[in-house]
Amino acid sequence: MPGAVERTRPARTGRRPGNPDTRTAILDAARATFAASGFDGASIRRIAAAAGVDPALVHHYFGTKDELFLATIDLPIDLPTLLAGIGAAGPDGVGVRLAGLIVSVWESPMAPGLAGWLRTALADEQRAALIRQFVVARMVGPFTAALGIPEPERTRRAGLVMSQILGVIVSRYLLFLDPVVQLTGEQLIASVGQTLQRYLTEPLPPAGRP
Amino acid sequence: MPGAVERTRPARTGRRPGNPDTRTAILDAARATFAASGFDGASIRRIAAAAGVDPALVHHYFGTKDELFLATIDLPIDLPTLLAGIGAAGPDGVGVRLAGLIVSVWESPMAPGLAGWLRTALADEQRAALIRQFVVARMVGPFTAALGIPEPERTRRAGLVMSQILGVIVSRYLLFLDPVVQLTGEQLIASVGQTLQRYLTEPLPPAGRP
Repeated sequence: MPGAVERTRPARTGRRPGNPDTRTAILDAARATFAASGFDGASIRRIAAAAGVDPALVHHYFGTKDELFLATIDLPIDLPTLLAGIGAAGPDGVGVRLAGLIVSVWESPMAPGLAGWLRTALADEQRAALIRQFVVARMVGPFTAALGIPEPERTRRAGLVMSQILGVIVSRYLLFLDPVVQLTGEQLIASVGQTLQRYLTEPLPPAGRP
Repeated sequence: MPGAVERTRPARTGRRPGNPDTRTAILDAARATFAASGFDGASIRRIAAAAGVDPALVHHYFGTKDELFLATIDLPIDLPTLLAGIGAAGPDGVGVRLAGLIVSVWESPMAPGLAGWLRTALADEQRAALIRQFVVARMVGPFTAALGIPEPERTRRAGLVMSQILGVIVSRYLLFLDPVVQLTGEQLIASVGQTLQRYLTEPLPPAGRP
């Protein structure tokens, strides 16, 4: 990754705004900086310095740090915004809405792109670590907060929800496990939606059984 | 894979039973035959022919076809037997027992071996396809049958159970997603156990909601 920054440096001077090489240089610098410092530790200022451009130019090309991060991981869909919409509608029926979002996204023309993206992400440990940070900080956190779930329950409920959502995605859309694939979208949404609703809003069972 | 069989052929004659090369030759032949014909299509007879040995020798070294398959995929634990034990104890409390099995296996000294095995399995498409067939035919099928769940519900319930179990394994033990890792084993067993119980034995919600 530092090599990528190195390579882009000779091209960084005398470029007009709008030059695709500048965009690439910023993206390379952002990937290297996020990888070295983590999502929270990397700032637009440091990324701009690594790319040899003004921070304003980074904002001009990519908007916020969140948006820049999304660009570096090539996520083919704006999941944070979709998820925020589902959380903003409140706790009633949130489980079924969330399950419906998974099915509608993964059974759309976006699915092959998303599957390729997720396979790549799972195979690259450094990239996976960044995505994990981002998902927790910018997706799960705001989502559970929007539903009004207080800490410390928020983390516990988020963990349960993630375990079920990731299982649906991996078993149905990456591994094509036969019994999971055979469920209709409606059956999946009804049952998994009920589980997600329970994980998010219903009383949690006492722990401590064997 | 056919190359592997080819390589073992010169070594197949004049070997004493108990020769490690014979064992390896049978394993190589089994992997190639399972890969070419699938789990159901491969027979001990065909595997023995591919290895150039008597079928009785295959049984002598590896037992049943199930056991031979388990040896070819190097599964570091006899999951079919563990799962059968949980199913045999009947439907009451089966969800918590099943969740407890996952946690106890994946939080034991076997965990690194299992994680390495699963990562390899997920990365190799042909191997993953065989494991899928085996899991469905020899683990999920007998388990749901032992609980007395009739078809066609059996497949639907199995799909839901697999989606939750795989999600726990991938999110907690492969990806180490922070909120999932933060759950205590007891919290996980209580909540996921409740979900698995619902998926296995409680009335399924009507499908058809949006």
